[in-house]
Amino acid sequence: GKAIKIAVAKGDGIGPEIMTATLHILKAAGANIEPEFIDLGEQVYLSGNTAGINKESWDIIRRNKLILKAPVTTPQGKGYKSLNVTLRKSLGLYANVRPVSSLYPFVTTNFPKMDVVIIRENEEDLYAGIEHQQTRDVVQCLKLITRPGCERIVRYAFEYAKAYGRKKVTCMVKDNIMKLTDGLFHQVFKKISVEYPTIESESQIIDIGSAKLAAHPENYDVIVTSNLYGDIISDIAAEIAGSVGLAGSANIGANVAMFEAIHGSAPDIAGQHIANPSGLINAAILMLAHVGQLEIADTIKNALLATIEDGYHTADIYQKNTSKKKVSTQEFANKVISRL
Amino acid sequence: GKAIKIAVAKGDGIGPEIMTATLHILKAAGANIEPEFIDLGEQVYLSGNTAGINKESWDIIRRNKLILKAPVTTPQGKGYKSLNVTLRKSLGLYANVRPVSSLYPFVTTNFPKMDVVIIRENEEDLYAGIEHQQTRDVVQCLKLITRPGCERIVRYAFEYAKAYGRKKVTCMVKDNIMKLTDGLFHQVFKKISVEYPTIESESQIIDIGSAKLAAHPENYDVIVTSNLYGDIISDIAAEIAGSVGLAGSANIGANVAMFEAIHGSAPDIAGQHIANPSGLINAAILMLAHVGQLEIADTIKNALLATIEDGYHTADIYQKNTSKKKVSTQEFANKVISRL
Ligand SMILES: CC(C)[C@H](C(=O)O)[C@@H](O)C(=O)O
Ligand SMILES: CC(C)[C@H](C(=O)O)[C@@H](O)C(=O)O
Repeated sequence: GKAIKIAVAKGDGIGPEIMTATLHILKAAGANIEPEFIDLGEQVYLSGNTAGINKESWDIIRRNKLILKAPVTTPQGKGYKSLNVTLRKSLGLYANVRPVSSLYPFVTTNFPKMDVVIIRENEEDLYAGIEHQQTRDVVQCLKLITRPGCERIVRYAFEYAKAYGRKKVTCMVKDNIMKLTDGLFHQVFKKISVEYPTIESESQIIDIGSAKLAAHPENYDVIVTSNLYGDIISDIAAEIAGSVGLAGSANIGANVAMFEAIHGSAPDIAGQHIANPSGLINAAILMLAHVGQLEIADTIKNALLATIEDGYHTADIYQKNTSKKKVSTQEFANKVISRL
Repeated sequence: GKAIKIAVAKGDGIGPEIMTATLHILKAAGANIEPEFIDLGEQVYLSGNTAGINKESWDIIRRNKLILKAPVTTPQGKGYKSLNVTLRKSLGLYANVRPVSSLYPFVTTNFPKMDVVIIRENEEDLYAGIEHQQTRDVVQCLKLITRPGCERIVRYAFEYAKAYGRKKVTCMVKDNIMKLTDGLFHQVFKKISVEYPTIESESQIIDIGSAKLAAHPENYDVIVTSNLYGDIISDIAAEIAGSVGLAGSANIGANVAMFEAIHGSAPDIAGQHIANPSGLINAAILMLAHVGQLEIADTIKNALLATIEDGYHTADIYQKNTSKKKVSTQEFANKVISRL
């Protein structure tokens, strides 16, 4: 078939390094895709465009409907809007899907059995971006929750559980305090859960829920939550499984989907070729599965696992007895390629 | 000297059981206090008082200026206001201090060296309680942050670090998204930190900060954060140290202070006499230290540790090779008393 065109954003900081590594792997694996590079991020911001993205890039995105994106750096300063948020909201990417599982014993973790998918609402909540200054000393931010927004993400979580044979969906919000907003999310969860009688459902307040996730992640399966809580608990899950550097994510909308690592652009280690490309590789694997190239997705996944199992790792991952196998970003990619 | 009068709220669920146990210990240790019981919580709510507290209790609180409080149950329903929040806000209890440290090897934890104090802003943020319904399908909650609120809590954290010989204060907020609100908190932190040149200061975004706390708590010392983040990360810290059932907290204001466990009223196990009184005992220890009865505070602390070191534990705490030492709430208190 014809190659699927993907809008590719190389990002800032370590972005270009991990994107180059990831694209090499995609090419070597025979992924039937054609990258179309788009400009966004730091350079665009600093040229005076406070959104960090120009019309040409929007056109490519809207034409291709698929994005593979490396992390970007938002410059300091109140005027600059987060591109992550702009892309998610402008493109209606309502579901942020973040699978995290243990690679024990190849990656050190206290939780060898953890295998959880966090499904994070991706457009509403405090990320609505409505903040204002009332006086010199008083500022406010609006948390926005809508019924259709809750319904869409909760249904997505149960449909995901069904499609992937998952057994349980846990809802985490703070409705003992935010009775209207988080209360609505919880109420919608309870209502929709009865439509899926074969999938277990449970609800936890986010404070004790995230504590239990951090202490016993093996007790969780699919978690559905609102935007900010999802931001926090997905970093927790990824880090206790081994490293935030390993996790990829899918941002899913009705028409467009965007795939990215969950970590940031790490400007402090940029240009040193020590960054871990695994998060972006995992994002690319999710992308290939999304467009139906399941076999190639599996091939890359297995080669990535084999590389990690053989002890190769970038500097962020500590593995016992394997310090001679610490490799650079591109060497890591080459190890993956040689295992395809 | 004359006994210090304390307003004591027995609470709901497991509240009365753990309060009885705690008061026995205080008495046996010779704490120079006189409990004055106050009515608040479930029964008061259900009598038609949506605040859950009546004038008489307020009078006792305002007279005594000290509260020892067991967890309360807020009935389901939109009309009932959380007593925790009402007490904290009405009494100006701006600092919620939550020390968490490992009791390894006596309490199982992956983090034998952790010893962290979370200092949580306690009046503002999404806990301001301003929520409204705009349409049937759209609800909002207002996050409120003020400069004086930030200054007070940040200064409290640095003064605490100074007083207790702590080395580092870490600020955690999400100012890459909430540039005005969380931005103000961060900005105040940076400004005040320079007044304490002997104390190290660092800032982390709450997503990766809480992830690193969950994965490597031994790297943290004092953490200062806003209300909701503090709620979440203090449960995480307590649970990975062993159990949320172990942690006590101090709610500090200019005129009044309130001491409580950080866990909830656990109605599911109420009346079974299996609840862990340690959280409330630790709260009482913080209270005695606050009123200057330092020796008695230390005596109780040492007896509590000795009890735990001798292997006695309630059902919530798993300890290897000690299952014969699983005891009831009151038996646990008796073990503490016999070690005073
Ligand atoms: C970079 C930041 C805006 C983003 C977020 O907060 O969503 C990131 O933390 C993430 O989780 O994708
Ligand atoms: C019970 C609840 C209102 C309270 C809070 O959210 O502050 C509790 O979780 C706590 O941490 O003290």
